Amino acid sequence: MHRYEFRVRYGDTDQMGFAYYGNYLRWFEIGRAEMLRALGKSYREVEEEGLRLAVVEARVRYLEPARYDDLLAVETAVEELGRASVRFAYRITRAGEVLAHGTTAHCFLDPAGKPVRPPASLAALLSRAPRVSGAPRGS
Amino acid sequence: MHRYEFRVRYGDTDQMGFAYYGNYLRWFEIGRAEMLRALGKSYREVEEEGLRLAVVEARVRYLEPARYDDLLAVETAVEELGRASVRFAYRITRAGEVLAHGTTAHCFLDPAGKPVRPPASLAALLSRAPRVSGAPRGS
Amino acid sequence: MHRYEFRVRYGDTDQMGFAYYGNYLRWFEIGRAEMLRALGKSYREVEEEGLRLAVVEARVRYLEPARYDDLLAVETAVEELGRASVRFAYRITRAGEVLAHGTTAHCFLDPAGKPVRPPASLAALLSRAPRVSGAPRGS
Amino acid sequence: MHRYEFRVRYGDTDQMGFAYYGNYLRWFEIGRAEMLRALGKSYREVEEEGLRLAVVEARVRYLEPARYDDLLAVETAVEELGRASVRFAYRITRAGEVLAHGTTAHCFLDPAGKPVRPPASLAALLSRAPRVSGAPRGS
Repeated sequence: MHRYEFRVRYGDTDQMGFAYYGNYLRWFEIGRAEMLRALGKSYREVEEEGLRLAVVEARVRYLEPARYDDLLAVETAVEELGRASVRFAYRITRAGEVLAHGTTAHCFLDPAGKPVRPPASLAALLSRAPRVSGAPRGS
Repeated sequence: MHRYEFRVRYGDTDQMGFAYYGNYLRWFEIGRAEMLRALGKSYREVEEEGLRLAVVEARVRYLEPARYDDLLAVETAVEELGRASVRFAYRITRAGEVLAHGTTAHCFLDPAGKPVRPPASLAALLSRAPRVSGAPRGS
Repeated sequence: MHRYEFRVRYGDTDQMGFAYYGNYLRWFEIGRAEMLRALGKSYREVEEEGLRLAVVEARVRYLEPARYDDLLAVETAVEELGRASVRFAYRITRAGEVLAHGTTAHCFLDPAGKPVRPPASLAALLSRAPRVSGAPRGS
Repeated sequence: MHRYEFRVRYGDTDQMGFAYYGNYLRWFEIGRAEMLRALGKSYREVEEEGLRLAVVEARVRYLEPARYDDLLAVETAVEELGRASVRFAYRITRAGEVLAHGTTAHCFLDPAGKPVRPPASLAALLSRAPRVSGAPRGS
């Protein structure tokens, strides 16, 4: 999986002393943006070419809490690549230990908000991404 | 389901012009906090009595985008009440239209972070909450 | 001053057990949006008419911490109304006690991002807003 | 000034297409945390030794907007070091251009929340930090 490091900031913590659960979706966003960049095209460029990845589903499993100033990594891969959709899988790790994992599913939209197939160049780029096989739905 | 209204704020939007997808988990938090308050005990009181609801899973299905200044409602119910766990179900609606729905699963922890059964008073309170039957896992 | 109530949410707290200091700027945004709405025009309508209030300065003085589930109010007024700019003043209060106060200064921009005078209708609306006199700059 | 790079994320943007103004206080937090780490002690260690830096004031001047995926730097220095307080100065830059600047003022608190002088080791560390002279108050 593609790997990108970041730190838990004070503003990410809550009074339980852990990173707030909503932050993980932001960390997933960072993961897919940095994986795309590593594959050769930033998400900014994708949008500038008139395509958007609209999120249709997000799932997170929280195993162990993350704490302030922890050096974490978000690991990202493609779990499923459809004709007009893509599902990314993520793991949040700390020194190799998996703290959380999850997925986000997206459809491709044109500027008018209509679902479309991505251009061949983007489909080719995503087909070169690290792959993981999804857990059976519902697990 | 228990219903609580709120507005989409400017800081909630992203450059797509929609509410950012991570905000929905915050809105779910607001929903369960306000449902507990309506049932007779705030989550602050739950924590002060030494119990915490640690989140173990979150899921969101995004159907239609929310926009700046939209007046939304978060509707909350209990989907499953276990001996040491609870699953809440949520809907985010705008003028009756469902924009998103999802669930969060939690376990009860004592101050040492050990899973415990909730005190009878909290279990009784949760058993009086609005109930929905969960979709088959994986849907 | 115009008054609007809201609650401190779990995601607003940090591991010190207080509301994170960055949230106050969001609360100020809520204050000016709700004051405009009370005066007769939402900020969404202002933007739809092609005008934007771009922030040029923000200041916050933190006196007492806010805590989880506190019922706070943001009190908002106009401190200074220029030809192409406006400065709002805010107080964050809890049961009458002032926890923080501050200001934000904005200029009016047209859709091209050029500073402009606001239309007469908006200037008139702002001139009816509650007023406070600013502290001498630098206080 | 101490310099630390980061990116503007999608969740940081608002529907104006710019980074939301509240994020700058988070970026300032990142700046002072990373400056402390570079000087030899993380803020996590400071807190573990029983000291907290409570914010008493924050100011931001916004000059130019930051956009999605911009690679920014937060530059941090000490502007004023008192006996029981410290004021940090910050600049947010993009490719050398200053987009925003500001300050935060803090007092040192013991675990009971009482203002205290910092231990000699921390005072010595802060005295080795990059220094800037503050603008006259009120500028």
